[in-house]
Amino acid sequence: MNNYQPPSASGSPRFCNMGRFMRLPEAKNAEGLDFAILGIPFDTAASFRPGARFGPNGIRNISAMIKPNNVTMGVNIMEELKGADLGDVDVIPDYIHETYSAIEEKLTEVLNAGAVPISLGGDHAVTLGELRAIYKKYGKVALVHFDSHLDLCDTVFGQKYNHGTPFRRALEERLIDPSCSIQMGMRGSLYDPDDFKIAADLGFKVIPGDELHKITPEELGEIIKERVGDMKVFLTFDIDFADPAYAPGTGTPEVGGFTSFEVLQYIRNIKDLSFAGFDIVEVAPPYDHSEITAYLAANIAFEFMSILAYQKKKNK
Amino acid sequence: MNNYQPPSASGSPRFCNMGRFMRLPEAKNAEGLDFAILGIPFDTAASFRPGARFGPNGIRNISAMIKPNNVTMGVNIMEELKGADLGDVDVIPDYIHETYSAIEEKLTEVLNAGAVPISLGGDHAVTLGELRAIYKKYGKVALVHFDSHLDLCDTVFGQKYNHGTPFRRALEERLIDPSCSIQMGMRGSLYDPDDFKIAADLGFKVIPGDELHKITPEELGEIIKERVGDMKVFLTFDIDFADPAYAPGTGTPEVGGFTSFEVLQYIRNIKDLSFAGFDIVEVAPPYDHSEITAYLAANIAFEFMSILAYQKKKNK
Amino acid sequence: MNNYQPPSASGSPRFCNMGRFMRLPEAKNAEGLDFAILGIPFDTAASFRPGARFGPNGIRNISAMIKPNNVTMGVNIMEELKGADLGDVDVIPDYIHETYSAIEEKLTEVLNAGAVPISLGGDHAVTLGELRAIYKKYGKVALVHFDSHLDLCDTVFGQKYNHGTPFRRALEERLIDPSCSIQMGMRGSLYDPDDFKIAADLGFKVIPGDELHKITPEELGEIIKERVGDMKVFLTFDIDFADPAYAPGTGTPEVGGFTSFEVLQYIRNIKDLSFAGFDIVEVAPPYDHSEITAYLAANIAFEFMSILAYQKKKNK
Amino acid sequence: MNNYQPPSASGSPRFCNMGRFMRLPEAKNAEGLDFAILGIPFDTAASFRPGARFGPNGIRNISAMIKPNNVTMGVNIMEELKGADLGDVDVIPDYIHETYSAIEEKLTEVLNAGAVPISLGGDHAVTLGELRAIYKKYGKVALVHFDSHLDLCDTVFGQKYNHGTPFRRALEERLIDPSCSIQMGMRGSLYDPDDFKIAADLGFKVIPGDELHKITPEELGEIIKERVGDMKVFLTFDIDFADPAYAPGTGTPEVGGFTSFEVLQYIRNIKDLSFAGFDIVEVAPPYDHSEITAYLAANIAFEFMSILAYQKKKNK
Amino acid sequence: MNNYQPPSASGSPRFCNMGRFMRLPEAKNAEGLDFAILGIPFDTAASFRPGARFGPNGIRNISAMIKPNNVTMGVNIMEELKGADLGDVDVIPDYIHETYSAIEEKLTEVLNAGAVPISLGGDHAVTLGELRAIYKKYGKVALVHFDSHLDLCDTVFGQKYNHGTPFRRALEERLIDPSCSIQMGMRGSLYDPDDFKIAADLGFKVIPGDELHKITPEELGEIIKERVGDMKVFLTFDIDFADPAYAPGTGTPEVGGFTSFEVLQYIRNIKDLSFAGFDIVEVAPPYDHSEITAYLAANIAFEFMSILAYQKKKNK
Amino acid sequence: MNNYQPPSASGSPRFCNMGRFMRLPEAKNAEGLDFAILGIPFDTAASFRPGARFGPNGIRNISAMIKPNNVTMGVNIMEELKGADLGDVDVIPDYIHETYSAIEEKLTEVLNAGAVPISLGGDHAVTLGELRAIYKKYGKVALVHFDSHLDLCDTVFGQKYNHGTPFRRALEERLIDPSCSIQMGMRGSLYDPDDFKIAADLGFKVIPGDELHKITPEELGEIIKERVGDMKVFLTFDIDFADPAYAPGTGTPEVGGFTSFEVLQYIRNIKDLSFAGFDIVEVAPPYDHSEITAYLAANIAFEFMSILAYQKKKNK
Repeated sequence: MNNYQPPSASGSPRFCNMGRFMRLPEAKNAEGLDFAILGIPFDTAASFRPGARFGPNGIRNISAMIKPNNVTMGVNIMEELKGADLGDVDVIPDYIHETYSAIEEKLTEVLNAGAVPISLGGDHAVTLGELRAIYKKYGKVALVHFDSHLDLCDTVFGQKYNHGTPFRRALEERLIDPSCSIQMGMRGSLYDPDDFKIAADLGFKVIPGDELHKITPEELGEIIKERVGDMKVFLTFDIDFADPAYAPGTGTPEVGGFTSFEVLQYIRNIKDLSFAGFDIVEVAPPYDHSEITAYLAANIAFEFMSILAYQKKKNK
Repeated sequence: MNNYQPPSASGSPRFCNMGRFMRLPEAKNAEGLDFAILGIPFDTAASFRPGARFGPNGIRNISAMIKPNNVTMGVNIMEELKGADLGDVDVIPDYIHETYSAIEEKLTEVLNAGAVPISLGGDHAVTLGELRAIYKKYGKVALVHFDSHLDLCDTVFGQKYNHGTPFRRALEERLIDPSCSIQMGMRGSLYDPDDFKIAADLGFKVIPGDELHKITPEELGEIIKERVGDMKVFLTFDIDFADPAYAPGTGTPEVGGFTSFEVLQYIRNIKDLSFAGFDIVEVAPPYDHSEITAYLAANIAFEFMSILAYQKKKNK
Repeated sequence: MNNYQPPSASGSPRFCNMGRFMRLPEAKNAEGLDFAILGIPFDTAASFRPGARFGPNGIRNISAMIKPNNVTMGVNIMEELKGADLGDVDVIPDYIHETYSAIEEKLTEVLNAGAVPISLGGDHAVTLGELRAIYKKYGKVALVHFDSHLDLCDTVFGQKYNHGTPFRRALEERLIDPSCSIQMGMRGSLYDPDDFKIAADLGFKVIPGDELHKITPEELGEIIKERVGDMKVFLTFDIDFADPAYAPGTGTPEVGGFTSFEVLQYIRNIKDLSFAGFDIVEVAPPYDHSEITAYLAANIAFEFMSILAYQKKKNK
Repeated sequence: MNNYQPPSASGSPRFCNMGRFMRLPEAKNAEGLDFAILGIPFDTAASFRPGARFGPNGIRNISAMIKPNNVTMGVNIMEELKGADLGDVDVIPDYIHETYSAIEEKLTEVLNAGAVPISLGGDHAVTLGELRAIYKKYGKVALVHFDSHLDLCDTVFGQKYNHGTPFRRALEERLIDPSCSIQMGMRGSLYDPDDFKIAADLGFKVIPGDELHKITPEELGEIIKERVGDMKVFLTFDIDFADPAYAPGTGTPEVGGFTSFEVLQYIRNIKDLSFAGFDIVEVAPPYDHSEITAYLAANIAFEFMSILAYQKKKNK
Repeated sequence: MNNYQPPSASGSPRFCNMGRFMRLPEAKNAEGLDFAILGIPFDTAASFRPGARFGPNGIRNISAMIKPNNVTMGVNIMEELKGADLGDVDVIPDYIHETYSAIEEKLTEVLNAGAVPISLGGDHAVTLGELRAIYKKYGKVALVHFDSHLDLCDTVFGQKYNHGTPFRRALEERLIDPSCSIQMGMRGSLYDPDDFKIAADLGFKVIPGDELHKITPEELGEIIKERVGDMKVFLTFDIDFADPAYAPGTGTPEVGGFTSFEVLQYIRNIKDLSFAGFDIVEVAPPYDHSEITAYLAANIAFEFMSILAYQKKKNK
Repeated sequence: MNNYQPPSASGSPRFCNMGRFMRLPEAKNAEGLDFAILGIPFDTAASFRPGARFGPNGIRNISAMIKPNNVTMGVNIMEELKGADLGDVDVIPDYIHETYSAIEEKLTEVLNAGAVPISLGGDHAVTLGELRAIYKKYGKVALVHFDSHLDLCDTVFGQKYNHGTPFRRALEERLIDPSCSIQMGMRGSLYDPDDFKIAADLGFKVIPGDELHKITPEELGEIIKERVGDMKVFLTFDIDFADPAYAPGTGTPEVGGFTSFEVLQYIRNIKDLSFAGFDIVEVAPPYDHSEITAYLAANIAFEFMSILAYQKKKNK
């Protein structure tokens, strides 16, 4: 057992002291940690419904319901790992480049301390800032990307930086290696009929939602593993990958999506990849109800933490 | 490219000028159009929760999120088709017969102009008014009906005209041919144990929800095609066909329903029928949350428009 | 036909006189009844979100939408059965032992009158009070338990009586026979990694959610039947068995759950067991929206009533 | 003390058995009663937002919070008066004339039994049906009318019967005497600039909202008393008299309105009039939040009941 | 009568065709108009809750309830004035300078056509763009500013352009004359204790909320008139001037505010000023309920339109 | 300036790191502090709507909007005072006596460290636990009590400890001196007609809501000062003192209440009393909307903190 345990619910009900992820201890920096929770409350780049700036707070509040044991994975994350909540990156609403600098700086600190960053968005634009820090630490990484949108636009509203463009920019900045990367769950109406082709031309593998509905989580796990190989992976999860019935609280929901159980299974089937970092983005609490979206997001982060614990336990 | 394009989201964010379906141009009449959007904001005939009078407004507002390309169908509806939003039929709350006249008149104009009417309800009673206009143009049509209810009651509350009776009336008025018609998704508790038998006795084919859950969308497509044959089809979609998790914003929701992905697939599998018209009914925004019901309804209309585009493209 | 019919919706719209379950007649006691509806509006024992005290009211209000025929089961519950709504047990908020006495007393009356109690919770702690009455009437019974949690904790917050402990207490009080009992749907993060093992050690059979997702409703029916054998059964259904998308209005929702259609099928596949009583618990209306949770709960109760009707009809 | 006491909250928490107004006993008819609660769940005639059909249920549910003593009035209504909840009039949605007959019949029964009817709407159209019954019992009465609208239109949507026309019809049917009647609180934008003049020409006294804001509740009491004289009075209260901040849950809210405290004071200052009946209308629960509108409505009914108790006590 | 009438509610219920302010006709430009409605759906500059981008849509939808006669003012705005809805300015989320250009260009067109611009925000940052256009037409104007905040910060988040800085920038750009300007209603906790002094030093007159509560609307009218003199006036109204009870749907609500009736009175008492333009800002529909905030905002715009009509009628 | 400053909003937007009151630093204990924020998330004792357990979290989240300067008081609380957020008392739901012990222990620590406790409820039962600690430190204190209820019942539901009984118990335990105490704002229907008399007989001074509406805040200040004299004061504020329009998010709202501006004024007029402690109770977030109730509560706490700052500044 380590010193980074949240309070026992037996002594402290879960609705006490809800301000941090899973009621983890707060920490000023990531020294000595296996993972670090970071909020990135930036939603300036949202193209439709804003509100993801309250995502980190929303996810943290309801994450009080999560307990440390992941039985499916066979691990207690709090026993295997040292983790803490480092609070939020001080973003600057309306000023995306200054915000990118703040994100990059904070993640760099975390990565240099040897911890895995687990970021809570914010809109999907924030991932570009994260990838810049990841790149400085690891060089190019593989992107494993769950989403209903490709986020590969060249411009949105005639502008280069937006929550629809981060991976186009990441590619141009050579932060990710498309030949090892995969995007899954894309669906819905599109501006450009060639979106999937464009992604392919850029070097990505895309499994559209329609196709993903036809394969099993195990099969998906194999496909991802083969694609990624030994590359270091950044896992980015846009909550709108899930169907609006399961995740109404988001900026650009898309029908025809996935259930919460499918979401859990997909993540559990990539438990052997080597992860550089993770984010869960686009949770917009003003559009959530009864916190079901935030709770799904919190569980996705928990599953990712469980993978880290599983790998640490296995390597003992 | 034609003159009926909505503004480009690149120049005009999707939350600008949201008042019309997919931000299509407004038109006074249907001359020269392939399809015409009509709102029918009538909910007087609702037997439980009213509110569908705000359905057209609710669907139009969130439809701003829909983009012109349907990749699954392989079409850009705005390039293939000329369409416009003709606004709402001026219904008269509390006066159903006067409202039926207004609906019939408006649809007749649209049909005579050679456009396919795409109507946004309103409760399901409005379909009777639409079918009267359809009949004047095409004679008897086949009804393809997705719903959790048969809507074949003789009377509700002891009265003949209500959202539970339109297809009984349509049959009596000989507007539809039951031998080519099909009703799908019916479920839930019933007043009359013989409802399905009554439907059969009236000549309809019914696939109750329980059975529909057992067959694939492709199989359903075959069944419908066989039933309908070469008849002109009116497609009527009651949003309560979907499960309340996916469509809470409706007047008489029913558990045990269908997912948004199933809904999309069912429609895509009837893309070769010959359609006289379409409506999506029973969206009640006061009971919706985060507009997930209205957005599903907007996508159903979009899939129907995609079928029209697919057929036009194929026939070039 | 009997005297316990609700008003016909033909003469009295379903939104008239909504205060009782399915608008059944009110009764002071259960004499002459086949089943008796009881509300148990106690939520003091909730460990996270309270609000289940308004569960009985919420379920009753929306139950007005349910009609008497269950076509899948082939029965009209109102023709086969005499039932009435006996109102609520007068619970004492904050005083769990006094409340247990009140529950036990009321259920004992119902059972002694020969009626099957159908209870609307309330949090899951109330089931212990019910089981005490059931035991006095039938001796040990088999527990058939749908839930996302085992509710087998020894203590919660260091205390013995809580909505997380009822079945541990029931076991200690020898009210149920674990060797004939089964718990299904458990999932989510846990405090104790050995929870499922503990349940097994206590003698229960547990089918965790992950496993349940892999078998059919028919297979589940067989497993339950085999487990239960000829024992008298108490069926307890925690609404959080369903996924939060289907049942957001509850105190401790858990992702990765089941659809409303699966819920209906599971119940229909145990229609040949011999039931001593039933409850549906943990509906928390302050967290519901558009009453979808309450309506699912009402339908679960309706399916249980349909089983009673089916058995009575079969045994005629 | 009489037999018509609601359960003591000491023995039965107020959230138990919430289905009737103030948890009063249910009664089949008004024999022996001083007052009778009636729901009239009709909202077909609403010109903007429907939903008032759920008004009686909404008001009844939250009325559980009201206790029997009105300290300001110095009375315990349950000790002075015998009252019961007679349930809802079986209205027929979409069929206003049939509904008027049902209302008239039910109120006639109540009036003939010697009880004062206290009706919970429903939209304001229902008052016409009530006034027809009142007229049969008492002849013409004085109307004391709190509202943000005059409801004196000749037609709405070109039709005679609607929630904007009841008092024009009542005047034409000679059910009320305008020379003893008064309308208060009218405000907001108007279709006809001469609305207030029309009301005056028809013989009514109108105190627009702007003027009412300038006088005290005591002064208003004097003005009403002088206007009404010894006439039998029907008090009709449209909840939209209150400002939307206090009563958001209504069909046609109007800014610039009155506070809940002003509402209570206005009613308390007419405690010496001779009342034939009362209704509170236009509560639309789908637009309410946290039941504040329904609770204000329940309190308005309670203040009216307190007047009845005060008069009975005084006359002992 | 002119050609710019909205449809009569008698022929077209108010819930039909809700997409434009008061259901006015749409126009491409302001030629021949007395006033032009413009939406400015920009909320990138919000410092706390975003969502005001949906303000124009929200205000337009509920404005359908407003009728053309203002009885207090004695005018029918539709008879006195020609007005139309010009739709939204095509803002660029996240790009404030590009958005300012778009706003300035659109307002310049309107002003050059001789119409008064009536703008629906959007957050308060948009007013700077409007004032730039106003200045090009009229030179420096007097600012009459209702708000709970001064919006005179030099920087927010270390940046110059934000919804907390527009009037500091306007002053620096010499768009407004502080010596004729007045700011009213400011209240709440502050970052800088000298905020009111700073405003005074910059030349503004400030009436904090605490003081405003002590004077009558008539007195306020006199104070404003004296301050403004003969200057052309831009009236900017931040909806958070009203108390959160009356206007919950806003980004930075402040307790201790004003009622809807006070708001109406304040505006009616400045009906003799000479107005260059008007905006109502900071309506955030995701935080509104039952549209009470949007409806108050729509009424504020209506009162402003009534002033224009009153002045035109007077000058005939 | 001291070390207990929250982060500057200029460097850290207010929606970053929202978990603590006004984003104050966290502290393990109260050593060296002027005041200490404590959450007491207990709502087991609520007699109607529970949910106040989420009150501390709800108040903390929205308190991020509060800034350090109170201009009306002329103080910057962060410059005058050292304060920190000590987190929540670890309550035990369902176990009121154990919870009282936990409250008493925690407050005793705070008081012994020389800090003023500022507690965020929780239901009103928690105040008894606080008063026990206060008594141990100061002996009997004067109670200054804003509320719509007296909370002086002997029993509720036949039980001694509940949110309706704390001040009866406090009196019996001789924790408060009724002859120096005052209760204000009581209103609404009552179980016992003699409630006000009982309070008087017990020695309290009561100013019912009806009377309070007739006097000015300044007059109230004088009355309180006279009543309290030099006694040490405990200020307890039940949010339901405010009208439901201003504070919908509470367990037992009462119409006829007070505005947010009145609330602020009442507190500002007692700025010269000598305070031993303070609590704000009964905020129930599940019933709040747009956080207006929680924000009012946060401002009430802020006004209290401003009094402490004002007194410290004055005494320098």
